[in-house]
Amino acid sequence: MPSEGDIQTMATLSYAIIGTGAIGGFYGARLQQAGCDVHFLLRSDYGHVRQSGLKVDSIEGDFALPQVKAYRDPAALPPVDVAIVALKTTRNHQLCELLPQIKPGGAILSLQNGFGVEGAIAQQLTEKNLPIPAILGGLCFICSNKVGPGHFRHLDYGRILIGAHQETQQPCLPTTLMKSIVADFTLASIEVATTDDLPMARWQKLVWIVPFNGLSVVLDATTEAMIADEGVRSLITNLMQEVVTLANAWGKRHSPSFPRQLSGDIITKMQTHTETMPPYRTSMKIDFDESRPLEIETILGNPIREANKLAVPVPNMQMLYQQLSFLMSGNCSK
Amino acid sequence: MPSEGDIQTMATLSYAIIGTGAIGGFYGARLQQAGCDVHFLLRSDYGHVRQSGLKVDSIEGDFALPQVKAYRDPAALPPVDVAIVALKTTRNHQLCELLPQIKPGGAILSLQNGFGVEGAIAQQLTEKNLPIPAILGGLCFICSNKVGPGHFRHLDYGRILIGAHQETQQPCLPTTLMKSIVADFTLASIEVATTDDLPMARWQKLVWIVPFNGLSVVLDATTEAMIADEGVRSLITNLMQEVVTLANAWGKRHSPSFPRQLSGDIITKMQTHTETMPPYRTSMKIDFDESRPLEIETILGNPIREANKLAVPVPNMQMLYQQLSFLMSGNCSK
Repeated sequence: MPSEGDIQTMATLSYAIIGTGAIGGFYGARLQQAGCDVHFLLRSDYGHVRQSGLKVDSIEGDFALPQVKAYRDPAALPPVDVAIVALKTTRNHQLCELLPQIKPGGAILSLQNGFGVEGAIAQQLTEKNLPIPAILGGLCFICSNKVGPGHFRHLDYGRILIGAHQETQQPCLPTTLMKSIVADFTLASIEVATTDDLPMARWQKLVWIVPFNGLSVVLDATTEAMIADEGVRSLITNLMQEVVTLANAWGKRHSPSFPRQLSGDIITKMQTHTETMPPYRTSMKIDFDESRPLEIETILGNPIREANKLAVPVPNMQMLYQQLSFLMSGNCSK
Repeated sequence: MPSEGDIQTMATLSYAIIGTGAIGGFYGARLQQAGCDVHFLLRSDYGHVRQSGLKVDSIEGDFALPQVKAYRDPAALPPVDVAIVALKTTRNHQLCELLPQIKPGGAILSLQNGFGVEGAIAQQLTEKNLPIPAILGGLCFICSNKVGPGHFRHLDYGRILIGAHQETQQPCLPTTLMKSIVADFTLASIEVATTDDLPMARWQKLVWIVPFNGLSVVLDATTEAMIADEGVRSLITNLMQEVVTLANAWGKRHSPSFPRQLSGDIITKMQTHTETMPPYRTSMKIDFDESRPLEIETILGNPIREANKLAVPVPNMQMLYQQLSFLMSGNCSK
C-alpha cells in the first residue's frame, strides 16, 4: 500500500471489470490508463480484446490500450480489491458465477441502474453461502456506447456518485475503501463523489430514468422529442411525481425520526436540464433496438414492489411496466 | 307514408350517407338493397362509385349495387329524413358544411364512436344558427373494412343500437322516427335495437373501446395478443375499471334520484368475449397504420374532460391519451 503522501498521485487498488460494455469498458480503460491494475471479464469480445486491447473515443480525448488483462473464464480472475459490476441487471442472476475472489477489506461496486440492486447481490451471495464483502453502489451520469468489439464511444458527462449499501438501508459515512476508490477515479480524471445515502441517491436518479427510459421505448422517441411534446411532458411530470412521492414515503418509513426526502424542486430541475441536453437515445431504447432484454425489473419492478409495500399508488409506473413487459416479450421472441 | 300493415315489408325513409366508408358504405348499401332511397356523399371515391356503384363482400352474402345516387357536392344532396353521419369524428368540425337539409320530423343519426358526439353536433348547429333536428346516436358492433374504392368487406357482427340524444342527458323512450328507422334496418336484415339511455350505452361501449383501441396503437398489437398477455390483461382491467367508475359517477351525477349504472360484471364479460373473438385489428390501429388522424378526442379526450368535471381520477386513461397524442403527431407528420 502506498504511503499517505502518495495517495493522490498513484493508483492503489486492483479492479476486476465484470461486464466490459459501454460503462465497464469505459471506466475500466480509464482506470488502467491511470495506472491501476485492471482485469477485464469478457464474453463475445474476448478474442478481439485479448489480441488488440481496448479503444476509447472520448470527448475528453481518444486513447487506446493495446494490451489489457482479458479473461473469458471468471475462475481465472485473480483476487482483487474491487469487483466493478457493470453487467446489465438482466444478467444479475448469473453474478455469483462471474465474481472473482475479493481481497480482505475489498468490495463489490455495482455501477448498475435501478433500485434494490445491492440488496439483491447480497441476498444472492447469502443464498450460495458465499462470503459477503462490502457492497457499494455507483450511480453513473454518463452517455457512453459500445460501437464495436472492445471499442467504446464516450459522448458526454461521466460523473460517478458512490455510496455504501447497508442491510438496514440507513445512511452511513464513506469508508476508507471508498476514499481509495475515489482517489483512483480522480487520478483517472473521472469526476467522482460519495453520498452518505445510497438508497435516496438511487431514488433520485430514478426520477429521471423511469419516465425517460420507459417512455423512450413505448413512444419510440428521443429525450428531445419527448420533452418538446406538451402531453408527454405532462406525463413525464406525473411519472416523476410518482417516483418522488414513493421515494419520500420510503425515506420516511425507513427513518421515521429524521427526514430523508428528495429536494422539492427536483422535477423542474430535471426537466429544464433535459431541455438543454443533446437528443439522447436512452440505454433502455438502445437495448430494445438491439433486441436485448430490458432492465425493467430493477428500474420499474422493484420500485413498484416498494410502492405496494408502502401502499403508495403508482398507476402510471404500473402501466409503463405492463406496457414494457409486453413490448419486451414480443421484441425478444422475434 | 305507408299504412301500419306495410311497415315491416316496405322501406319508408330517405337517407343521406355522410361519409361512405367502412361503416356508412356498408349500412347504406344494405338500406338501398332493401329498397330505401339512399344518397351517398363521397370524396375520393366519387368518380368510381358514380360509374360503377358499390360492392359489398359480406359474411351474410356478397352483393353489388351497380347504380347508386352518388354526390361529391353536399349542396347537391336532396332533403332527406335521416342523415347518417359515418365520418371519422376527426372530421366532425366540417360537419355543418356536409349535412343535407333534414325533412320535418327527420333526424341526424351519428354512427360514430366515443362520448359527446351528439352534443357536439347540436352545439355546432347552434353556433352556426342552423335548425336543430332530432339527433340520434347509433352504436355499431361490427367488423367492416373498406378494401377499395366503393368496395367494403363485412367480416363479422353488424348489430346497431340506436338511442336519442337529449340536451338534458336524460333517458327517453324511442320516438316514432326511431321506430321507422328500426323497421328499415330490419328490412335490410341488420340486427337493430333501441336504447332508452344513449349516454350510458356509449359509456358501456367505451369500456371496450378505450383499452383495446388505445393499447392496440401503443403496443402495436391485435386484440388476441393483448388479451393473452398477463400484464396487458391486468392493464386492460385497470382501464376498464376507470371507465366503469367514471360512467357510474356520470350516471349518478346526471340522475341522482335513480340509478344509471353499468352492470357489475361487464369487465369480466367483455374480456371473456374478447378471448373468443378472432384476432382483430382495431379501427384506431387501422387509422394509425394508414397515417390517418386518430379519434382520440371522442374516445379519450371527452371522457377525460367528464372525469375532470366529476373529480374522478383516471390516471391510466390520461396516460393513454398522452401517449396516443404523441404517437399521432409523429405519425401524421411523417
